[in-house]
Formats: sequence, structure tokens, C-alpha cells
Amino acid sequence: MYYEKDAARGVDGTFMWLMEEMGELASALRDGTHEERREEFADVLAWLTTIANVAGVDLTEAISHKYGQGCPGCGQLTCTCSDEGKP
Amino acid sequence: MYYEKDAARGVDGTFMWLMEEMGELASALRDGTHEERREEFADVLAWLTTIANVAGVDLTEAISHKYGQGCPGCGQLTCTCSDEGKP
Repeated sequence: MYYEKDAARGVDGTFMWLMEEMGELASALRDGTHEERREEFADVLAWLTTIANVAGVDLTEAISHKYGQGCPGCGQLTCTCSDEGKP
Repeated sequence: MYYEKDAARGVDGTFMWLMEEMGELASALRDGTHEERREEFADVLAWLTTIANVAGVDLTEAISHKYGQGCPGCGQLTCTCSDEGKP
């Protein structure tokens, strides 16, 4: 939808926008309405997708590659790793 | 996959993990391989999805609600807004 503008801006410039939206998301999570949160989540995901496109990464393929078989730690669809672990 | 752990950690604690992954993504974008970038994009998306789940926001519905009809500014699938504008 925005590829030409995004590519012209490059990864670094686009990352700045993502960070701005991330701040708005934090704010909405702290004291926003459900509608505001929904909007900010959409914006963050949109900018994340944008950067992936500019960087030549297929986001769907990325998530499927890492998490498509379940938790990368224990291999289960419902994670059974120790609570001390990262996730 | 991680809902019970995530819900116990809450939105604030989960946001910290998201920020950590965001830093790793920035690093991978700066000087990582394609494989490393793909991995970090997957992690950021996973944590973003996690926070949305804990906050009761349906990420798919959120993006479809805001961008499903095209650019929210001009309504086109390929944005024709002025370059001065936000996107």
C-alpha cells in the first residue's frame, strides 16, 4: 500500500516511525480505550510489516519458520518450558 | 502457545520483552544476516501478538478494521496521500 514511499524512506527512517507508534501503543495500553488500543496495535503492525518489506523479509514466512512447529524451546503448541526460561 | 505465562506476566512485563526484541531487531537490521533478520522479525511479531492477546485485542481484526479498506488517509490500496503526510 505504501511500498514506494517506504522504500524511499529506507529502513532507518521507517524504524523511527515504528518507534513513534510503539510509544503511542504504550500510552494506549496504559490509559487508552479498547478502540485506541486496537488502533495503535494496527499501526505498530503496519509499520513492522513495512520495515520487513523494505528489508526483504516475508513476515508470514518468518513467523511460520520460527513458530510454525510450536514453541522453539519445547516443541509444544502450548509451551511447557520452565518458567525460568525466556518466554 | 504462551497464554498462561503471558497473562501471569501482564501487559507491562510483556512490553519489556517486546522492547528487548525490538532492540535485537534494530541490531539485526543494522548488521545482521537475512536469517537473523527473519528471526528477529518473528520474535517481535510474536511478542506484539502476545501483548495484544493479554490486552484483549484481536490483531487480525485490528489491522483489518484500520487498513482493510486501503489507506485510512486517501482510501486507495496504493496510497496517494501527499508525501508531507504521515505515511
